[in-house]
Amino acid sequence: MTSVNTSNLRISADRLWSSLMEMAEIGKTARGGCNRQALTDEDKQGRDLFMAWCDAAGCDISVDTMGNIFARRSGRDAALPAVIAGSHLDTQPTGGKFDGVYGVLAGLEVIRTLNDNKLETEHPVEAVCWTNEEGARFSPAMLGSGVWSGEFSLGYGHNRTNKEGQTVLQELQRIGYLGPAECRSKPLRAAFEVHIEQGPILENAGLQIGVVGGVQAIGWYDLVIEGMPCHAGTTPMEVRRDPVMALYVILDKLYQVADDFKPRARITFGDIRTEPGSRNTVPERVTVTVDMRHPERTQVKYMEQLMREIVRNECGKLRLAGEVREELDSPAISFNDDCIRAVRNAAGALGYSNMQMVSGAGHDSVYVSRVAPTSMIFIPCEGGLSHNEAENARKEDLEAGCNVLLHAMLEMAAQ
Amino acid sequence: MTSVNTSNLRISADRLWSSLMEMAEIGKTARGGCNRQALTDEDKQGRDLFMAWCDAAGCDISVDTMGNIFARRSGRDAALPAVIAGSHLDTQPTGGKFDGVYGVLAGLEVIRTLNDNKLETEHPVEAVCWTNEEGARFSPAMLGSGVWSGEFSLGYGHNRTNKEGQTVLQELQRIGYLGPAECRSKPLRAAFEVHIEQGPILENAGLQIGVVGGVQAIGWYDLVIEGMPCHAGTTPMEVRRDPVMALYVILDKLYQVADDFKPRARITFGDIRTEPGSRNTVPERVTVTVDMRHPERTQVKYMEQLMREIVRNECGKLRLAGEVREELDSPAISFNDDCIRAVRNAAGALGYSNMQMVSGAGHDSVYVSRVAPTSMIFIPCEGGLSHNEAENARKEDLEAGCNVLLHAMLEMAAQ
Repeated sequence: MTSVNTSNLRISADRLWSSLMEMAEIGKTARGGCNRQALTDEDKQGRDLFMAWCDAAGCDISVDTMGNIFARRSGRDAALPAVIAGSHLDTQPTGGKFDGVYGVLAGLEVIRTLNDNKLETEHPVEAVCWTNEEGARFSPAMLGSGVWSGEFSLGYGHNRTNKEGQTVLQELQRIGYLGPAECRSKPLRAAFEVHIEQGPILENAGLQIGVVGGVQAIGWYDLVIEGMPCHAGTTPMEVRRDPVMALYVILDKLYQVADDFKPRARITFGDIRTEPGSRNTVPERVTVTVDMRHPERTQVKYMEQLMREIVRNECGKLRLAGEVREELDSPAISFNDDCIRAVRNAAGALGYSNMQMVSGAGHDSVYVSRVAPTSMIFIPCEGGLSHNEAENARKEDLEAGCNVLLHAMLEMAAQ
Repeated sequence: MTSVNTSNLRISADRLWSSLMEMAEIGKTARGGCNRQALTDEDKQGRDLFMAWCDAAGCDISVDTMGNIFARRSGRDAALPAVIAGSHLDTQPTGGKFDGVYGVLAGLEVIRTLNDNKLETEHPVEAVCWTNEEGARFSPAMLGSGVWSGEFSLGYGHNRTNKEGQTVLQELQRIGYLGPAECRSKPLRAAFEVHIEQGPILENAGLQIGVVGGVQAIGWYDLVIEGMPCHAGTTPMEVRRDPVMALYVILDKLYQVADDFKPRARITFGDIRTEPGSRNTVPERVTVTVDMRHPERTQVKYMEQLMREIVRNECGKLRLAGEVREELDSPAISFNDDCIRAVRNAAGALGYSNMQMVSGAGHDSVYVSRVAPTSMIFIPCEGGLSHNEAENARKEDLEAGCNVLLHAMLEMAAQ
């Protein structure tokens, strides 16, 4: 950007807000949220709108074989690697207006701002829309960025199937987003993603910007306790082998484990199921999903070890069979120091209160960071609520996050 | 029976066993159980076989408008009220060979034994098959005896609908068991029901006969705990409103309540469900079914009161909404003293080890006892197991229970 002074450059909060609200009309729900699941007709409408905006902003647009969209604003030197800002336009079935969408439209708003000010960057700048981040219609989550980064093969990505038996490939073809570009990572100067925090930390701390240093480690487990089903009326308590009698003790001790590792450990029992699930029969089997997180993977593995001991001990006492099955072992991610610094510098220079933090959730940036220098920017969301139709963010925070994105991208794109 | 000495009279264990095994062929399952649900083609086959046997035994058979079957052996005085032995031929979807069936075929075996010995009783004797005791295909359970006793109206009984939308009336017509007789109780001298215990008490005590004095009181409740769903990764433990955090404490305290009322109290959490039931979302709602039983209804109501206090306190501590909804309030039943005495006398005279006990489960006798002098006879079943294809009973215990039934009926039918 040579000698132009960009320090007073700001995005247009009104234009960003209006784009967010226009996008939120597509798939909007009665309770004020969005249902724009990946590769549905609504997702197509959202993509079409984004493409039209990028086209109007003069971008060169390419779509790859996973439907990922790259809208490029040229830099001075076409041979230099791009600085990208990417996230996703797909939502949960009862999702909100901001999760993912904000990151994509903020990337576009950066390009529009550069256009308004006729600024030329050294490196190209791109706004990116990744396919199927939510994983709600096609499992797993972060599929488009996962294939692009080499985490999954293209065949794996294309063959993911929804509950109705449709594949990703079929649905990409159906909505016209099976692009010609190869889905493979290219060298990047830097990758950024601005996102609502989806938790209450920034709001509670009264801060505007989270400088995201990495993503915490995640362990997913299925805990299965098996006993002996019997008649609820005729079987004395003392002869029962009732898995619920171990369940409550195990839950108690596992919450205690999270407490022992506080404040950074998290443990969640999102789904508890009983079989046969009859009111007047002692259950044969209780299955509990366990989600354990900590910024350090070694601590997740240590908590897992404690869980296995607790389950063995408590089930043993009651003559029950206990089993812990690992479903996911996601290591902690540390983002790129230069990118983190660019975000912190931008927030500081713009005078936004900020803190460094770890992302509790997975994002496209997790996979992107494996092949490119990456970091993220968080802004507060109301009550920490997300994956919920009531998800909300303040216009001034959306503006602040987008200004930080602009200046972090400028720092990385200028040289 | 005037002056005939009947004390040496015994049923034929081989014939009883052979009838049980022949009936078990109808709807038999791969794992050795029976699937002969109410008003199915299999139930029709079972009824047809029973009717043929009753016909061969010279009975007058009548079928009422709920499909209940009454097979009558005349007594000396046709004006006297009958002594009946009744239970049910329908089974659970994965039921066993003995639950209910034993009581119906034991009644028939009593009639056959009287025939073999050309004994005439003062009162008529009837073997009865009640419709839809299990409640598996049509809710509620004990429907045929319930309408007959006046607990339910005929319209209510006829309009019960299964999962496929078929009514009891339609299915009675379809299988040819919509009888002409009015479904209404008639005066009875006595009603007996011999049944497997469906619990481990007799087996553990090493006894052959349970003299059933009554049925315990039952309270059914839905316990609902509501919190705030949030992201498992991004929400710190201390700000969560996680219903599972109250669930484990409430389960702990409710098992303690059962312990405080031991050994006669029973508490069962047969079904636990989480909503939305997603692995990485703190549940919004946990619903637990609670089955509380005690031989005295006042104690069930007292346990219920303690439960309501526990739920209010524990949910309040964690800013959760807790609710207890009553689904069933079934009072304790005390059977008729004369009938209980007849059973005890018979067991004693026959030299069978026995104890008086309370039934933990509901039976057709619960409704019958509202309009007629009633009691029940229990025999041990293997491991206390019932509602299970592996349900089993020893031939000598089946014989003992049927001999007790014979002599209890003789005592009541003779005078």
